[in-house]
Amino acid sequence: MNNKIIALYEAHDVKALAELLGRMNVADIAEQLTELNEQVAVKVFRMLGKDKAAEVFAHLDRDTRRQIIRSITDAEVGALMDGLFVDDAVDVIEEMPAGVVTRILANVPAGKRETINQFLQYPDDSVGSIMTIEFVELKTEMTVREAFAHIRETGVDKETIYTCYVIAEDRRLLGIVTVRAMLLADFDAKIGDMMETDMIFAHTLEDQESLMAKFRKYDFIALPVVDEEDRLVGIVTVDDAFDVQEEEATEDFEIMAAMSPSETPYLKTSVFRLTKNRILWLLLLMLSATATGAIIAGFEDALAAVPALVAFIPMLMDTGGNAGSQSSTLIIRGMALEEIAPRDAGRVLWKEIRVAVLCGAVLVVVNYLRIVITGGTQLMALTVSLALYTTVVLAKMVGCLLPIVAKRLGADPAVMASPVITTIVDAASLAFYFLLASAILHI
Amino acid sequence: MNNKIIALYEAHDVKALAELLGRMNVADIAEQLTELNEQVAVKVFRMLGKDKAAEVFAHLDRDTRRQIIRSITDAEVGALMDGLFVDDAVDVIEEMPAGVVTRILANVPAGKRETINQFLQYPDDSVGSIMTIEFVELKTEMTVREAFAHIRETGVDKETIYTCYVIAEDRRLLGIVTVRAMLLADFDAKIGDMMETDMIFAHTLEDQESLMAKFRKYDFIALPVVDEEDRLVGIVTVDDAFDVQEEEATEDFEIMAAMSPSETPYLKTSVFRLTKNRILWLLLLMLSATATGAIIAGFEDALAAVPALVAFIPMLMDTGGNAGSQSSTLIIRGMALEEIAPRDAGRVLWKEIRVAVLCGAVLVVVNYLRIVITGGTQLMALTVSLALYTTVVLAKMVGCLLPIVAKRLGADPAVMASPVITTIVDAASLAFYFLLASAILHI
Repeated sequence: MNNKIIALYEAHDVKALAELLGRMNVADIAEQLTELNEQVAVKVFRMLGKDKAAEVFAHLDRDTRRQIIRSITDAEVGALMDGLFVDDAVDVIEEMPAGVVTRILANVPAGKRETINQFLQYPDDSVGSIMTIEFVELKTEMTVREAFAHIRETGVDKETIYTCYVIAEDRRLLGIVTVRAMLLADFDAKIGDMMETDMIFAHTLEDQESLMAKFRKYDFIALPVVDEEDRLVGIVTVDDAFDVQEEEATEDFEIMAAMSPSETPYLKTSVFRLTKNRILWLLLLMLSATATGAIIAGFEDALAAVPALVAFIPMLMDTGGNAGSQSSTLIIRGMALEEIAPRDAGRVLWKEIRVAVLCGAVLVVVNYLRIVITGGTQLMALTVSLALYTTVVLAKMVGCLLPIVAKRLGADPAVMASPVITTIVDAASLAFYFLLASAILHI
Repeated sequence: MNNKIIALYEAHDVKALAELLGRMNVADIAEQLTELNEQVAVKVFRMLGKDKAAEVFAHLDRDTRRQIIRSITDAEVGALMDGLFVDDAVDVIEEMPAGVVTRILANVPAGKRETINQFLQYPDDSVGSIMTIEFVELKTEMTVREAFAHIRETGVDKETIYTCYVIAEDRRLLGIVTVRAMLLADFDAKIGDMMETDMIFAHTLEDQESLMAKFRKYDFIALPVVDEEDRLVGIVTVDDAFDVQEEEATEDFEIMAAMSPSETPYLKTSVFRLTKNRILWLLLLMLSATATGAIIAGFEDALAAVPALVAFIPMLMDTGGNAGSQSSTLIIRGMALEEIAPRDAGRVLWKEIRVAVLCGAVLVVVNYLRIVITGGTQLMALTVSLALYTTVVLAKMVGCLLPIVAKRLGADPAVMASPVITTIVDAASLAFYFLLASAILHI
C-alpha cells in the first residue's frame, strides 16, 4: 500500500501532512487511517478540521471508529457528533457497544440527541432508519433569487442542495424544486409556480427494498420521506441508497448460501466470526439431511437386491438441488427487486411447472439414453427417468413456492434458497425413487 | 392496475390525456405504456413532445421499444435518437435485431452516429459501454457567473449539470467544479482557482465493478471518464451506476444458481426462454454427477457388505455442498465488490482452512454422537466422521480457490458457485468415504 499519510507522519513533516490532509478526498483519508496503528490514527484524525473530521469519520470502518471514540475527549465526541449528518450519527451509534452509546449520547447537543433517539427507533429495514434531516427547505412564496440566497446561507450543512423541498407552515410537503430547474428558470419566478407537485416520495416505515425500486425507476438524486401525516421528516440521498442496495444484495447472497449476514468485509472478518456465521446453518442442514439418510436406510432390502440403484443417487440429488435453486433464486431476487409480489404466486407456479416439464423432458431423454447406452436395462432406465422427472418438477415447484410463502409469513424469502430447497427436495425425491424402484423392478 | 392513460384514451379525451402526459413523470408514463396494446402505445407515444418522448423511451422495456421503432417513420426514428442521451441510444441499439440497427443508424444525425458507433465498440463490461457525453464543460478562465450563464445556455441537454468538468484546449481533464461549490462561492471567483484537481475518475476500458467501487467509496453524483491520453470522453452518472449495480448483482445471482443471465424481469420472460436459460447447466451438471455415480458403482462390493453406508451419502453430499458454497459465495461476492483480489489467494485459503477446521470439528462431534446414540457402531461413526471432516475441509478449499482461479484466468468467478463446487466436492468426498470405509471396516 502506498500510504502517503504514514510517510509524512514518520518523517515528522507536520506542515506537509496538514497540507496533504487538506487536499485529500475524505474517503481516501479514511482508507489510509484504517491502515495506521491506533495511536497514530487518532493523532492524524485530530489534525483534521471539525467538518472534515466528521466527513472522514463517516467513511471509517467500525473498528477504527471505535478506536477513535475511545481515544478522544468528551468534548471532542460532542463536536464530532455535531458535525455528522444525522444518518451517519445514527449509523455510528448503532454499531457501538452499549456503554459507548451512553457516552456518545450524553455529549451530543440536545436538539440533535432527540432526533437521533427518534431515528434509532425506526425498524432496521425501514426507510426511516437510513434517512437524514439535512435538506434545503423552501417556501412557495420565495423567488428563485431568494431560494438561491437561502441555499448560499444554509447549504454548507446540507447533505444535498440539488433537490429542494417546498413545505407548508405545518411541514406538509407541497412540492419539489431542483437546482437545475432554478438555474434554467427566470430568477424572479416564484417557487410555488415552478415546483413539481406530482412527487415521488417514501414513508418512514416503508421497506428499504421498495425505496430502492423507486430510485431505480425514477433516477432521482434524493427522495423525500414523509410521516403518516404527510409531513416532511427526512430525505434519502442516492449515494446512501447506492450503499444500501449493495448491502442488501450482499446480505441476500450470504443468507442464500446458508450464512448469517455480516457487514464486515471478508478479509477483515475473524476466523471465529466467520465460523460462527456459518456453523448454525451447517449443523441444521446436516441434521436435516440425516432424515434423507433414514429414508434410504428404510429401503435397505431394495438396495441389497439391486445395488446399482445407489449409483443414481448423486445425480438425482444434484439435479433436484440445481433445478430447485434456479427457481428459488429467480423468485427471491424478483421479490427483492419488487418485480414479483406474493399475489403472483399462481402465475409463478404455473410458469415454473411448464419450465419444469420442458427441462425435465430434455434431462430425462438424455438420461434414459445414457443409461441404456452404458449397459443399463430398460426397466432401470425407466425407473431412474421417472424419478428424475418427478424430482425436477417437484424441485421447481418447491423452489418457487417456498420463498413466496416465507414472504407472506413475514420471513426473509432469501432463507428459502438452495440449501433448504435441496434438503427438502432430496428427501422427497429419494423416497419416490425407491418406491418407484420397488414397484417397477419388483423388489 | 390503475392505468390512467388507458382510461383517458378509451374515453377519447385527447385534451385531458395530453394534459396528463405533460404532468406525469416519464418513468410512470413508460410503465403505463408497456401495459397498452401495440397500436395504442404507439399512438400515445406520438402525443409526447420530442424531449419527453426520448426520456420516456429511455425508460421503456425492450419489447415496447421494438414495437415503437417498428411502427414509427424514419424521420421519427431520427428525431427520437437525436433526443436520447448517447448512453441510452447505445442501449437501444444494442438490444435491437441487426436489421433494425441498420435502419436506426441510417437515421441518426451524422455526428451522433459516429459517437454511437465508437461507443458500441467498448467491451460489454467496460466503463466506456455505459458512459454518456452530455456533460457541462467549463474553462479555467471563466468566472462562476460566466459558468452559470454557460449552464443556463447549454444545461437543458445535459445528463447532469451538478458536476462540471474543466478541460484544457486539448480536452485533457484539468479539474472538477460542483454547482454546490459555485453556489456557495463568490460569483466573481475564477473556476481555475476553485476547481478540485485531486480528481477521482475512471478509464474507458476499466471494469464496471471497479467503477461501482468508486461510486460506493466516494459518494459522487457523476464520475468523469478519460481515455488513454487523459482526455475527457464521457461521464457516468450515479443513477445509471445504480442500475448497473443492480443488474450486476442480479446477473451474479443467476450465474451462481447455474443459469444464463437474463435482463428481462421474470414475469415477462417466456417459458421457452426460461427453459433455455436453465437447461444447459442442468444437463452439464447432471452428466457430471453421473461421474459421482460411477464412483459409487465402483464400490458395489463394499455396499453389498455394509448397506448402512448408503444412508450417510445424502448427509455427506449436502454438507459438502453447503460448506463449499458458503466459501465460494463470500469469495465471489468479495471479488465483485473489489474487496478481494486474486493476489489475496494465500490469505483467503489460510482463512478458509482454519474456518473449515473449526466448522468441521463441531459437525463431526455432533455427527459422531448422533450415529452412536442412534445405534451405529463406533467404527461406522469413525468412518463417517472422518469422511465428513475431510469433505468440509476440501469443500471450503475448493470453494474459495476455484472462483479466484477463474478470475485469474479471465473467466467469471460467479460460475464457480454452489452447483459446480457441489459436483466436484461430491465426487471427491464420496470416493474418499468409500476408501475409508473399505480400510476401517475391512470390506
